[in-house]
Amino acid sequence: MTKRELKLGAFLLHNGHHVAAWRHPQADTGADPLRLYQHLAKTAERACFDAVFFADSVALTSGVGGLEPLTLLSAIAAVTDRIGLIGTATTTYNEPYHVARKFASLDRISRGRAGWNLVTSDNAAEAANFGRTEHVGHAERYERAKEFHQVVQGLWDSWEDDAILNDKQNAIQFDPQKLHTLQHHGKHFSVAGPLNVSRSPQGKPITVQAGGSETGKNLAAETADVVFTAHPTLASAQAFYQDLKARVEKAGRHRDDLKIMPGLFPVVAKTQEEAQRKFQLLQDLVTPKDGITLLGRMIGNFDLTPYPVDEPLPELPLTDNGQQSRQKLLTQLAQGENLTIRELYLRIAGGRGHFTLIGTPEHIADQIQLWFENDAADGFNIMSPYLPGGLEDFTELVVPELQRRGLFRTSYAGTTLREHLGLAFPKNRYAK
Amino acid sequence: MTKRELKLGAFLLHNGHHVAAWRHPQADTGADPLRLYQHLAKTAERACFDAVFFADSVALTSGVGGLEPLTLLSAIAAVTDRIGLIGTATTTYNEPYHVARKFASLDRISRGRAGWNLVTSDNAAEAANFGRTEHVGHAERYERAKEFHQVVQGLWDSWEDDAILNDKQNAIQFDPQKLHTLQHHGKHFSVAGPLNVSRSPQGKPITVQAGGSETGKNLAAETADVVFTAHPTLASAQAFYQDLKARVEKAGRHRDDLKIMPGLFPVVAKTQEEAQRKFQLLQDLVTPKDGITLLGRMIGNFDLTPYPVDEPLPELPLTDNGQQSRQKLLTQLAQGENLTIRELYLRIAGGRGHFTLIGTPEHIADQIQLWFENDAADGFNIMSPYLPGGLEDFTELVVPELQRRGLFRTSYAGTTLREHLGLAFPKNRYAK
Repeated sequence: MTKRELKLGAFLLHNGHHVAAWRHPQADTGADPLRLYQHLAKTAERACFDAVFFADSVALTSGVGGLEPLTLLSAIAAVTDRIGLIGTATTTYNEPYHVARKFASLDRISRGRAGWNLVTSDNAAEAANFGRTEHVGHAERYERAKEFHQVVQGLWDSWEDDAILNDKQNAIQFDPQKLHTLQHHGKHFSVAGPLNVSRSPQGKPITVQAGGSETGKNLAAETADVVFTAHPTLASAQAFYQDLKARVEKAGRHRDDLKIMPGLFPVVAKTQEEAQRKFQLLQDLVTPKDGITLLGRMIGNFDLTPYPVDEPLPELPLTDNGQQSRQKLLTQLAQGENLTIRELYLRIAGGRGHFTLIGTPEHIADQIQLWFENDAADGFNIMSPYLPGGLEDFTELVVPELQRRGLFRTSYAGTTLREHLGLAFPKNRYAK
Repeated sequence: MTKRELKLGAFLLHNGHHVAAWRHPQADTGADPLRLYQHLAKTAERACFDAVFFADSVALTSGVGGLEPLTLLSAIAAVTDRIGLIGTATTTYNEPYHVARKFASLDRISRGRAGWNLVTSDNAAEAANFGRTEHVGHAERYERAKEFHQVVQGLWDSWEDDAILNDKQNAIQFDPQKLHTLQHHGKHFSVAGPLNVSRSPQGKPITVQAGGSETGKNLAAETADVVFTAHPTLASAQAFYQDLKARVEKAGRHRDDLKIMPGLFPVVAKTQEEAQRKFQLLQDLVTPKDGITLLGRMIGNFDLTPYPVDEPLPELPLTDNGQQSRQKLLTQLAQGENLTIRELYLRIAGGRGHFTLIGTPEHIADQIQLWFENDAADGFNIMSPYLPGGLEDFTELVVPELQRRGLFRTSYAGTTLREHLGLAFPKNRYAK
């Protein structure tokens, strides 16, 4: 058996993951975000990261917005060679034909580096941009997501691997026996196919998911290649890891067919004191307005502005959106330590409930190794505090330490994201 | 008044516009279309073209498909600096929020070079990929297209030009007075906004249209920056030009606010004989199957396989899709010259009803000049017979001749597509 190898993603968000990231003196808030993201992708590629990753929302949910992930990833593909390119597309307000097509196209453009983060849309702001007055309920969203995924997978099998012939002499462009219509007719979608993008270098782009609900975990166990997740502690990550891997096996797959990558918010410096100072610099830049907005959004889209910021968190009704697991986590945290609203938002201003490490490269590598070797993670999605400096710190200080320990690659062995992740090339359903 | 300047677009389609293009010995049918299209865009940029242009269909309508236009254009943006990037997106099977966002994102990625070719979808193959059993009728499509356009324009005004402040010191990321929700509630769409991509370098991406029907021409007169059109003769182009410019003025705009660019299918060589041989080489590669499929599609999506290929074109019912004007043109051509199906498909195998020129650089430049100086065209959309050779021929042989005559630029004066086209920067509707 080959040695198990740590996976690393660079989760790039606005000017960084800390809610005050854009106010950091070295944060790049220039008018040209493409230049910033191309630089970051190249930085991550030099460090042999598996992928860059972009979240998404089809509404303005905070700050000044950004770039649309697929156009952004394609412009990054053009200036990189190896690093995987994972973008988010919601199943709630999209059509499967468009999504299948865009990711297949990105996979061809990037020569096999595309990944689709399948999400459902859970807030009213997104609903209102697509003709609805309120967001879609959890059960309906997941039912639609599951069928959406089936259709996308089906469309990605439209062309068999060797369907295209381009035989100029005999005027045979492709083998019609190897082109397949889908004729999907389900509850949410009717899609004939075939896809008008031919088979992509990975066979199919990678599928990523992040749902933490029972339904979400079951869908991921059946269908995902990678799961992103949020766990503040080793125990919580281990419980999730064991649970999800068991579900993967129950779904008839091998447990290694799905990689679990918790988010990691790292603040790294050569000494513990310097790392703490780095973190405190960002904490001091959080305004009450931004802190309250962030907390309200994270805890299930509630308006917390009416409540006194230095009083305990009020009782909130259970949310019916995708933040249920995070709402529970934050409520327990606040109640357990009797935190005020201000204290609570400062707790999440950086890692937002994700695993947070503040310290030296050795300390951070120790913790990564601990999680990786103790059934808590197959890798991590690195959530840099601010950009570009936060990612540069991680690649310059932590990655070499991980490499010294033999945990992480020092060069890419393959060319596709699927190869980086150690996932098998998928057999086309029609192949004989 | 500044001198009127010819506009040139490079209309890139599969392996070229001739139906047998892919069979041309020098046609690039390799597995990496991105490399081909990046090469072509750079070739057109060296020749100072205004834009590259990609058509689109959300179904497999012929051949082996291609890449999705927005991901493709974004990857081209990353390796070019000046040339405009025009892509097609249908209003029939899209949501305006997605379309507004993708083109705004491309406009930011390309630093002001994006253009949206607004079309409606008129065939059953597209309908069947989006849950419909037959295509949407002409009137409904245009009603939806008009409202779609309004919503997109509104979303593009979400952020005023100077809304983003990024004032780190005072924690003011943007001026909330300069961020606007749309709150559009119409017959086809309800879209709250605001757009989550901030104001793009062109203010708004360019809008292109190509509709030839009364409804289509009126929509273009009211809203388009550029119109692509198909005219085989000077007289027909002049009639269209006069008609559309009059409609533009009737809509309260200046006639120069809309540029009319007919398609031009050029086969160029140093001598007339060589050009004819070049054309004949392609004509000889057309198989009856491909010819009949092309003709059937162009004439309104009819299956012509049951009819004898060497008998006259049968009477066909009037189509209810976007090909009405082309159906009329082709039917008149066949009847006027008593053409068989084979003769008719060979007539359109290259230019597909567009202006076709086969000859020397001087001959082609003469005709371009004639149309340009006699109210038939503001420029041309160049439809190369095969790729990459066809475009290279045009840029190496015809463009220098146009430049010698002072008709076409020898370097870019501006940086945005809007500047290349001589169109004014649009005022934000909310700006005081």
